[in-house]
Amino acid sequence: MITAIGFDADDTLWHNETIFEEYHRRFQALLARYHDPKTVERALYATEMRNLDLFGYGVKSFALSSIETAIELTGGSIPSEELRALVQMARDMLAHPVELLDGATETVGLLAGGYRLLVITKGDLRHQERKFQRSGLANIVAHCDVVSEKDNATYARVLARHGIAPEDFLMVGNSMRSDILPVLALGGHAAHIPYPLVWAHEESAAPAGCARFHELANLRELPALLDRLRA
Amino acid sequence: MITAIGFDADDTLWHNETIFEEYHRRFQALLARYHDPKTVERALYATEMRNLDLFGYGVKSFALSSIETAIELTGGSIPSEELRALVQMARDMLAHPVELLDGATETVGLLAGGYRLLVITKGDLRHQERKFQRSGLANIVAHCDVVSEKDNATYARVLARHGIAPEDFLMVGNSMRSDILPVLALGGHAAHIPYPLVWAHEESAAPAGCARFHELANLRELPALLDRLRA
Repeated sequence: MITAIGFDADDTLWHNETIFEEYHRRFQALLARYHDPKTVERALYATEMRNLDLFGYGVKSFALSSIETAIELTGGSIPSEELRALVQMARDMLAHPVELLDGATETVGLLAGGYRLLVITKGDLRHQERKFQRSGLANIVAHCDVVSEKDNATYARVLARHGIAPEDFLMVGNSMRSDILPVLALGGHAAHIPYPLVWAHEESAAPAGCARFHELANLRELPALLDRLRA
Repeated sequence: MITAIGFDADDTLWHNETIFEEYHRRFQALLARYHDPKTVERALYATEMRNLDLFGYGVKSFALSSIETAIELTGGSIPSEELRALVQMARDMLAHPVELLDGATETVGLLAGGYRLLVITKGDLRHQERKFQRSGLANIVAHCDVVSEKDNATYARVLARHGIAPEDFLMVGNSMRSDILPVLALGGHAAHIPYPLVWAHEESAAPAGCARFHELANLRELPALLDRLRA
């Protein structure tokens, strides 16, 4: 009997990867004199993966890795004046307005009456908190847990803190790796709602033959799924 | 009757500002060809304050602000190769071993039997969590709350989440602004333990004539204070 629902935030409640995508294109443009876009992308991703354990997720990590990549890919010859654009990029991304996904406010509002709702998101603490506040969803959802990694241990800790048994919990998100697989592993339920863009790091295969796993096309399908599960 | 104790972490349980100080000196050395140390410091602090609301606290914010300041202070003429040192600086700071303050482990261990203990720290989520794990204190203290700002609202939220009444709570920390004043404002108790270095942003005057405020010379004095308060 599901009594609590966790929502991923980036690319589940509000757009995120589309914003990153735009800055990836700007980064490629900045380095277009030196390298083709594919080489730039590959190098940036390699830097991000190398730095991930120390830097963690989020815009500031992305900005530092992009600065490092730009210096590396140009053998140190990129004028530092041009790197200033990458610090400005971080500021622009952090200040970017929150753009909710279609149906987010209505669906969350509809479910608030019948379920305990949490937002569980990873990334930069201050940035995620600010987006949650600006999204308007803080008026409907009581808790926003910003975590540094979304693995089994993290979900176990968050659910324990809220006194929620995994079998009573459904997680909703776009990332198989971060939102779906760890929750299923704990014995919880998960609804996957794909987003058109996926950061390579988040890619993972769908779980096979698990009755607690559900695939939805968009957020508006969530209330009907919950009704079916209750029936 | 105090039943719960909150510990600030940076410069209360482990050294932090001494590490920042070292990287400030490295930053001054990097720019010594262009400007005197005072000018460099002033410019860096101004950049940090301008970026604080968007970037928040922590090493990655410091690194981005130092990169921006280096470009500004040299009119864009610093070779980008030299900026690479500032990204490396961020990695070094994030990987820096945790150096506990004298008496931290013993004092926390001594109090664990009689009080609920929390660590409440602001800054980069992943970095603070990693330091908490590496400090060895995670074996003694059940909760580490990393927050994006330490103001009245944050303390009220953290205490409510743990079901702790402010009048039963004592916060221990080195920053008047972040550890002492907000907790006193909520009706809680606070013990200030100065650290030899204070980041300018954290400076604030001591509260005047508040019986719930206590000044200690070091962590080892904390158990005796608690005994006195219980008597």
